Amino acid sequence: MSESDERDARHRVRMLRKKAVIDGRIAQARDEYGLLLVHTGNGKGKSSSAFGMVARALGHGIRVGVVQFIKGAASTGEEAFFRRFPDEVRYHVMGEGFTWETQDRQRDRLKAAEAWQVAVSLLRDPAIGLVVLDELNIALKHGYLDLEQVLADIESRPLLQHVVVTGRGAPDELIAAADTVTEMSLVKHAFKAGVKAQKGVEY
Amino acid sequence: MSESDERDARHRVRMLRKKAVIDGRIAQARDEYGLLLVHTGNGKGKSSSAFGMVARALGHGIRVGVVQFIKGAASTGEEAFFRRFPDEVRYHVMGEGFTWETQDRQRDRLKAAEAWQVAVSLLRDPAIGLVVLDELNIALKHGYLDLEQVLADIESRPLLQHVVVTGRGAPDELIAAADTVTEMSLVKHAFKAGVKAQKGVEY
Repeated sequence: MSESDERDARHRVRMLRKKAVIDGRIAQARDEYGLLLVHTGNGKGKSSSAFGMVARALGHGIRVGVVQFIKGAASTGEEAFFRRFPDEVRYHVMGEGFTWETQDRQRDRLKAAEAWQVAVSLLRDPAIGLVVLDELNIALKHGYLDLEQVLADIESRPLLQHVVVTGRGAPDELIAAADTVTEMSLVKHAFKAGVKAQKGVEY
Repeated sequence: MSESDERDARHRVRMLRKKAVIDGRIAQARDEYGLLLVHTGNGKGKSSSAFGMVARALGHGIRVGVVQFIKGAASTGEEAFFRRFPDEVRYHVMGEGFTWETQDRQRDRLKAAEAWQVAVSLLRDPAIGLVVLDELNIALKHGYLDLEQVLADIESRPLLQHVVVTGRGAPDELIAAADTVTEMSLVKHAFKAGVKAQKGVEY
């Protein structure tokens, strides 16, 4: 083989290797993108499943943001646990002392809007790989947030960021926008048989 | 009031207080007991929801045992994360290197039986407040474990211990024995639209 032939061969190998790298990057860009998941229905496990995903993400070294749109006993366990990892999980609960029972729609809207601002800050941070918007559907159902604005903010998040929205009664537009929608249905519930809510299971 | 009347009055107060304590204990004994939960169906979130409950339990200072009856990529995130807490979580994955694809039923049964022995050790330990039997339904479906024995072992666990069984195709007898059964149904799935499994979401 002449010196020139050798050079050509080396070049071809180099170029093929380069092409493989570039093709790989293209394939990766196409394959890896952040999913929008919705957990809805009247059954249990909508929020638990989202918090299971938080554990999974942390296991992969992915940073997580959580906004809980209902402050209540139902979340004290997860909150206490995930607040142990302030460097890995940004955890926000809407409106200290806030309840939906105030019947003060003006105040409710204000608290929901504040919580959404926190959500937006997470949805604009490419360092956050997973955002959990727990019980967002309830806030949407009550009309405390503008659905179009919420969808637009979710849509314009970083390419690789996953978002999970939980809560019964997910609006059709959110379901349409989602990549994966799971409906949790109640087959049988201990509560209905008169059993008290159990720590570690129900809250 | 005579000395005798005073004594009677004190006695009555003491007895009422005692009765209140005893009634309280009875109420507690009736109210607080470990639940058997089943997560089944073809949708997502069966295992994630169980792992969300693990986080919730840990937030309450409850010790947890996990046995995964399928070793696979689907669980690497949770496993990596929860193995960070060896004092709080006893984490066992069935059969190192084991797959259901071996078609070696003899070996499969053996591995399943070994995993069940680990499960039984958790189900006999009152210090463990929550036991997750992840994908146990698959092992039952394949006939790798004796359903009656499994139900008997679960039934005879400590009074306050919660158990979560996950996996599609939960047998009717397990559903009958459960306190709470949730069916996760697929409404829409990114996979079906040709999207690759995403780290932190799917596994």
